Amino acid sequence: MDANKGKGDHVLQNPGGQMDRPVNFHFLESMLPKVVKRRVHALKRLQVQCANIEAKFYEEVHELERKYAALYQPLFDKRRDIVTGAVEPTDEECEWHSDREEEEELAEEVKEKAAIEDAKKEEATPEEDPKGIPEFWLTIFKSVDMLSDMLQEHDEPILKHLKDIQVKFSEPGQPMSFTLEFHFEPNGYFNNAVLTKVYKMKSEPDASDPFSFEGPEIIDCEGCQIDWHKGKDVTVKTIKKKQKHKGRGTVRTVTKQVPNDSFFNFFNPVKASPDGEMDEDSEFTLATDFEIGHFFRERIVPRAVLYFTGEALEDDESFEEEELEEGDEEEQDEEGDDDDDDGDCDPKA
Amino acid sequence: MDANKGKGDHVLQNPGGQMDRPVNFHFLESMLPKVVKRRVHALKRLQVQCANIEAKFYEEVHELERKYAALYQPLFDKRRDIVTGAVEPTDEECEWHSDREEEEELAEEVKEKAAIEDAKKEEATPEEDPKGIPEFWLTIFKSVDMLSDMLQEHDEPILKHLKDIQVKFSEPGQPMSFTLEFHFEPNGYFNNAVLTKVYKMKSEPDASDPFSFEGPEIIDCEGCQIDWHKGKDVTVKTIKKKQKHKGRGTVRTVTKQVPNDSFFNFFNPVKASPDGEMDEDSEFTLATDFEIGHFFRERIVPRAVLYFTGEALEDDESFEEEELEEGDEEEQDEEGDDDDDDGDCDPKA
Repeated sequence: MDANKGKGDHVLQNPGGQMDRPVNFHFLESMLPKVVKRRVHALKRLQVQCANIEAKFYEEVHELERKYAALYQPLFDKRRDIVTGAVEPTDEECEWHSDREEEEELAEEVKEKAAIEDAKKEEATPEEDPKGIPEFWLTIFKSVDMLSDMLQEHDEPILKHLKDIQVKFSEPGQPMSFTLEFHFEPNGYFNNAVLTKVYKMKSEPDASDPFSFEGPEIIDCEGCQIDWHKGKDVTVKTIKKKQKHKGRGTVRTVTKQVPNDSFFNFFNPVKASPDGEMDEDSEFTLATDFEIGHFFRERIVPRAVLYFTGEALEDDESFEEEELEEGDEEEQDEEGDDDDDDGDCDPKA
Repeated sequence: MDANKGKGDHVLQNPGGQMDRPVNFHFLESMLPKVVKRRVHALKRLQVQCANIEAKFYEEVHELERKYAALYQPLFDKRRDIVTGAVEPTDEECEWHSDREEEEELAEEVKEKAAIEDAKKEEATPEEDPKGIPEFWLTIFKSVDMLSDMLQEHDEPILKHLKDIQVKFSEPGQPMSFTLEFHFEPNGYFNNAVLTKVYKMKSEPDASDPFSFEGPEIIDCEGCQIDWHKGKDVTVKTIKKKQKHKGRGTVRTVTKQVPNDSFFNFFNPVKASPDGEMDEDSEFTLATDFEIGHFFRERIVPRAVLYFTGEALEDDESFEEEELEEGDEEEQDEEGDDDDDDGDCDPKA
């Protein structure tokens, strides 16, 4: 079990509990003898000081993350080079204990089947020598529910050109943020070599509500302009509309561009409203976007290969299972939805 | 939303827990063309290196936590002094914005009621001048489900003597751990001034399963011997049993000590079995214990006053609401269980 859960989730009390300002606490506190109440207020002032210290702590953690980002980077660069085929790893670099286990563990029939598959593939495309790890990132997009939910069929050929995803942290002294960089190889869809999404964070307690501070929060995000080749923009679709001329009564067909579902709308996010007034839908969309950004940063980028092989999915799933209570079965039928596409490099196929 | 969720705080997992071995991945990988498979293995080796770097990152976070513990300590000492009545805070130290808001916001009738209550209290105990914040920690124990679940009636008078709870981190170079210290004033129950519970942590990836590493985990804990005054040990109860002498047929009554439910069993935890073989019950008990230890460390100690006033309970609850999906209504009827005891200093009364 995840002892970390402890962070918050046992203490559920007060039904009917609303998040509104705890106006009733004023009442509860007012029931304390006056001399005690003022001491409680003294403790609250100390607590505000703690929150301010905590904010500094998280800033230092952010610094630490920047420092470690630099340590991970050579490994991530190596990963990119192997994925794209720029570098062929040596035999030593590819040694993996499962190689032998596999030989021993795999049932004969499965091995035979695999051998036949291998043979078939080689037969079908005898001269094909796959470069790097084909469709590495696309496979991840297809495997992770949160991403496959955004993925449309027309996005897939574009994402085959995705070479790398990187996380960059804001410089010290700058407002805290992180940037997701999606690096593409030259492709027939857009001119950008890199698509970016910046997540801005806030790491101070709110003066009006210092006790709600729990560390840095994403407060806003910013996408980028995609320089689509003519007619290649998958985030819009062209619809034809018949228009009747009022005077002459003639009918003409006009074409009109309307928004289209696509992962690439990720780079054109809803804006957080500065005065905090948004409709529920936009708020939900924004919250989901923040979650996705966080998930890229915390899970996908640091351990991409495990999402490619599916190993991380199992972990997330068991994480999920622990988080949810019994009877909460949504998401149960999600796996396998995207299993039946292209056999070659989808490890789930 | 809490972007921090994923950071250093998905720390701590499984006591005996292994995620099920992903044996099927061997099969999935075996379906990849050989040249691709070996590249994936190269990525996995890089991923292991990442996990080792990550372990170092968490060690540094631990160092940072130690550093900040020292910064919080003077504030926590001040808190203890106010709670116990050793120090009376100045008027300036007690200024709290709700003082005025309260006056304005509270409905007249509520204010009147409060005034009557105040008067009643003063009437009932005219000379009583409460010292510090009476039953500060006991009130917290009663308010937090995870703790009130352990709390027995016979524990309450003892916990009235609890002066402070502190968290101490292991020294650098030592195996990673933290210690909860429960400081008591002299009392009629036991001689210990401090009861301790040590939580040992592990912060390296497991060689046999490096990818399951998510940061430091609690792996074991150790309580302490409580030096109970004669007849005061609430963790045992004496039962009388009639015994019939086989030969003579005479009946005699023998007394026997058997374990008794009590919060103080927290200092006598189930031991984690070194070979990982435990029955399910013990595993569950241990897992719960780890959660409680983590909760003391992460929530109760750093923000005790907010659990005393109830503010943190609301926060935890709304956190929970975000985490759980709609329709998940368990725990709804939990409130109010411990509200009706001693009015004076329980803010919920």
